[in-house]
Amino acid sequence: MTVKQLTLPELTQACASLGVPAVGLWREPVDAYGLEAAAKLVRDTGLAVTSLCRGGFLTATDPAERARALDDNRAAIDEAATLGTDTLVLVSGGLPAGSRDLAAARERIADALAVLAPYAGERGVRLAIEPLHPMYAADRCVVSTLDQALDLAERFPADQVGVVVDTYHIWWDDRAPAAVARAGASGRIHSFQLADWTTPLPAGALSGRGQLGDGAIDLREWRERVEATGWTGFIEVELFNDGLWARDGVEVLEETAGRFADEVF
Amino acid sequence: MTVKQLTLPELTQACASLGVPAVGLWREPVDAYGLEAAAKLVRDTGLAVTSLCRGGFLTATDPAERARALDDNRAAIDEAATLGTDTLVLVSGGLPAGSRDLAAARERIADALAVLAPYAGERGVRLAIEPLHPMYAADRCVVSTLDQALDLAERFPADQVGVVVDTYHIWWDDRAPAAVARAGASGRIHSFQLADWTTPLPAGALSGRGQLGDGAIDLREWRERVEATGWTGFIEVELFNDGLWARDGVEVLEETAGRFADEVF
Repeated sequence: MTVKQLTLPELTQACASLGVPAVGLWREPVDAYGLEAAAKLVRDTGLAVTSLCRGGFLTATDPAERARALDDNRAAIDEAATLGTDTLVLVSGGLPAGSRDLAAARERIADALAVLAPYAGERGVRLAIEPLHPMYAADRCVVSTLDQALDLAERFPADQVGVVVDTYHIWWDDRAPAAVARAGASGRIHSFQLADWTTPLPAGALSGRGQLGDGAIDLREWRERVEATGWTGFIEVELFNDGLWARDGVEVLEETAGRFADEVF
Repeated sequence: MTVKQLTLPELTQACASLGVPAVGLWREPVDAYGLEAAAKLVRDTGLAVTSLCRGGFLTATDPAERARALDDNRAAIDEAATLGTDTLVLVSGGLPAGSRDLAAARERIADALAVLAPYAGERGVRLAIEPLHPMYAADRCVVSTLDQALDLAERFPADQVGVVVDTYHIWWDDRAPAAVARAGASGRIHSFQLADWTTPLPAGALSGRGQLGDGAIDLREWRERVEATGWTGFIEVELFNDGLWARDGVEVLEETAGRFADEVF
């Protein structure tokens, strides 16, 4: 998504050229290219798929809507398995229209996970609950902190449900370092994503994630914190950024790889 | 600030007409009108002054800048005393340019409070640390949760330093209800402010606070939660909202008073 201006063949080729060993994929471009063809493309390029984004949106109260959401998440789990990734990222969903009950919405996520977790486990896919920044609590994700995500995940086996640690969403939280340790200790860090925090936020607050090094987050410290739990794995860089999207995608990928080397290590 | 389009005489007159018994003031319009004149105006109108906004911005590292901030906060404390309010709201300040150390910035706030708290206490003014929503952590306020605000406040006597409970900033936080109880138990709820959460956020994320009842926050539940601690006091409605500011101020005040009656009680 950092370089969504690239087609899948352009993306995989650029990753290979730059020595980027793995890539996180989103469902929409995979679907547009064709699931089997996309799986073959990344496999032939020798790229690992870090994760598939995204399932989730599990907070609806309407029974038909809930059934549709479960079906869609089962499909996403199947897609992840086909792509050869072990991780499906979940964005939990916001408050249903007219509702003001965050706690009940979080409980409905748990209800859905009880259905989806075994389905995922049977297919070798781990569900990764992503806490989103509290500014998205109403309309996108009622899971706002790493502790909240862990409170949900820990109801299920660690090889079925874990969390995403994304610096953009949790950097401000003085309890997040302890939550990272908690997640690491139980093997629940299923994805580790980086983006920097820059201001001012754009309208809608969705596409202002900063290039690594441009913002307020000590990315090196966060990497060290995650690795201190014994975690090893690929680190994803996920930048929703209008400025980056407007530029040449290969150039952005090259810049991002350079920042990754300079700012994270 | 909800009706900043009104002059101070228009505001006090409209409050009196609508039966609004108290008003929160901001320093800039008070200064523009004249401090002594403003104090006389609210006194003659029979209005209580709930609080003065705002002091703070205490996170600078540069010694000269820190000295200026302390001077400015002493002035704000004096102004609060002159206006006859017992509460000065503090917005703590963001990260200094180039810094990524939130913990150190929070510690510098404590250092400043050690100087300002006794000064305020001698003048009968309580400092109220306002946690702002985490989306402001980098550039406006490194104090993002009610617990963080209390961790700072509890280093000082409760009649010198407390907190602001503002629904807009803390509504998403599942730990905030316990923090409200914690604050209430030690007599540290020095201000209680309401605004609703509406989306999408405007660019800059500053002026999108929702009119009471328009958004995702259960305002009645928050009032009951605060009052359950034994708190009694005036409740402030503080809406930064471009749409409301563009309308007739008296009409907005009347609408807000109506919403207050319908949505909060």
